[in-house]
Amino acid sequence: MSQVDEPKTEVQQSLSMLYASIESELARVERRLQGELRSEHPQVHAVIRHGLGLGGKRLRPALLLLAGQAVGRLADEHIVLAAVVEMIHTATLVHDDVLDEAAVRRHVDTVNARWNNETSVLLGDFLFTHAFYLSSTLDSTYACRTIGRATNIVCDGELRQTLASGDVNLLEEDYLAIVEAKTAELCACCCELGAHYAGGDARAITRLAAFGRYLGIAFQIADDLLDLEGSEAATGKSLGTDLAKRKMTLPLIHARDSLAADRRDGFLALLSDSAGVDREALLAVLMHHESLAYARDRARHYAERALAELVGLADTPAKDALTAMAEFAIARSA
Amino acid sequence: MSQVDEPKTEVQQSLSMLYASIESELARVERRLQGELRSEHPQVHAVIRHGLGLGGKRLRPALLLLAGQAVGRLADEHIVLAAVVEMIHTATLVHDDVLDEAAVRRHVDTVNARWNNETSVLLGDFLFTHAFYLSSTLDSTYACRTIGRATNIVCDGELRQTLASGDVNLLEEDYLAIVEAKTAELCACCCELGAHYAGGDARAITRLAAFGRYLGIAFQIADDLLDLEGSEAATGKSLGTDLAKRKMTLPLIHARDSLAADRRDGFLALLSDSAGVDREALLAVLMHHESLAYARDRARHYAERALAELVGLADTPAKDALTAMAEFAIARSA
Repeated sequence: MSQVDEPKTEVQQSLSMLYASIESELARVERRLQGELRSEHPQVHAVIRHGLGLGGKRLRPALLLLAGQAVGRLADEHIVLAAVVEMIHTATLVHDDVLDEAAVRRHVDTVNARWNNETSVLLGDFLFTHAFYLSSTLDSTYACRTIGRATNIVCDGELRQTLASGDVNLLEEDYLAIVEAKTAELCACCCELGAHYAGGDARAITRLAAFGRYLGIAFQIADDLLDLEGSEAATGKSLGTDLAKRKMTLPLIHARDSLAADRRDGFLALLSDSAGVDREALLAVLMHHESLAYARDRARHYAERALAELVGLADTPAKDALTAMAEFAIARSA
Repeated sequence: MSQVDEPKTEVQQSLSMLYASIESELARVERRLQGELRSEHPQVHAVIRHGLGLGGKRLRPALLLLAGQAVGRLADEHIVLAAVVEMIHTATLVHDDVLDEAAVRRHVDTVNARWNNETSVLLGDFLFTHAFYLSSTLDSTYACRTIGRATNIVCDGELRQTLASGDVNLLEEDYLAIVEAKTAELCACCCELGAHYAGGDARAITRLAAFGRYLGIAFQIADDLLDLEGSEAATGKSLGTDLAKRKMTLPLIHARDSLAADRRDGFLALLSDSAGVDREALLAVLMHHESLAYARDRARHYAERALAELVGLADTPAKDALTAMAEFAIARSA
């Protein structure tokens, strides 16, 4: 595993280097988040501040700012909207942590020890509603409409995913449609807003939105790969959660479809074992059918489609940074 | 108990009579809700439609429409926004049903049997984001701003309430501030939007918003009373949930503050009994100190303040309906 994880630190270093052209803007976004997310009530305030720390990489604000810089000049709207998309992303993270009854039984150790489900739900709602309020302080309804539509598609995708959990027959095309909705839509929205508020023309806005969409798909496939084969120490988060939630991800779908009919049932039984999935046995099947390599290849395919959307943009540090971001998306799982 | 509950049906009948002046508009709101809340994906669609049925009384749409009629003419915006506020109200209802680990243990029977916590969280998010998207389809950012701000205050109030659960020392003023935020703010917002889009002047908008705010407070105090002393058959919902969640409501706060110091500890121990609250013993204390009557009196006080805000409005069926609504708020717990 160390071979897999070593490049990561290097990539992360280059990630902070690629933020160089938006360093002062990201600092303004951070101050804006600090300024917006507060409550007069000390206990509520503590919960909100806790939420603020959950995002971490600020990838979506960076995407919005870089898309803006790639086509024009950044304006105050970019700072506001970068804060908005980070709030929305954090809201979805917080709500992802809410566990259902079954999950509580299986993963009682992973439940946030400080607060309970009820608090997580309300914190997410607070972040969502504050994000919408903040976007409505801009001059027109454009940002509200764009963000409202995108987040609604995100929710639809998340609902599909939840309702499909346990469905071992999920098709590859349905997996991709879910990924496009739940992850890529918000990335596309970030790029669209960034380009729009920098004065980009319709073609530039469309292409940058497509860049964000393909990047998001690549990113999620890579993330799902990490959840299967990464080490918790290297990624800093709990892994194997997809297996625990009976979520079919790309390598599993590929292996299932590669297996002869007489061996498929045994494989599916492995995934549905109520005592938990035997990860070693599972990885052996995935290796045998090169299913991890297949998923990596698909992630690379979408990263390349993302890069193709950047062709024609003037060479700027922002374009270089967006290019590096697409490489970062897949290098994580290389 | 039958004496308490008998007037209810009568009041409910008059409630449907008071909707007479907005009957066709409410039907349009209903069609709009049906048209908006859908998904291409059959499983997702089923979840969303389930959510649609949860609201029931459509009190908030009615409030918005009647506030509009009381100061001017209804426009298309009223239909859109009435659908929006109902979606937001339903989102908060759905999220209220998400149970934390402790609650799962205590109330496993009340967990929505059809889906799990995860689905409830995502359904609520879908409704929230769709409501925001829909409000952004209007011409200006006014509705987005008003609704964004109000819902954010609602979330702050709900967070305060959750964080205060188990705090037997909650002050009456803090209880009222929580009620004002979590319930009254959205009622005020409904009336403000209704009056604004009917072309009301600043004074009319302010007074109708105040009407909604006082009405909301009266309504919540009455609701908390019902949760303590109502019968499940008459109200059609699970009662005693506040006690189970260790939520201090007005009658409990009043009784606590009425008790001599040497008897207070025994009363508080009654509320904190891990085996569940002895409701008969509790009601005996509340009767003795006239704490239920006190809470009813406070509800009446806020309903009267609401009615005072209507003075000066032209006599219209809409004004009569708003008046009846304030009476309905407290009659439920009379």
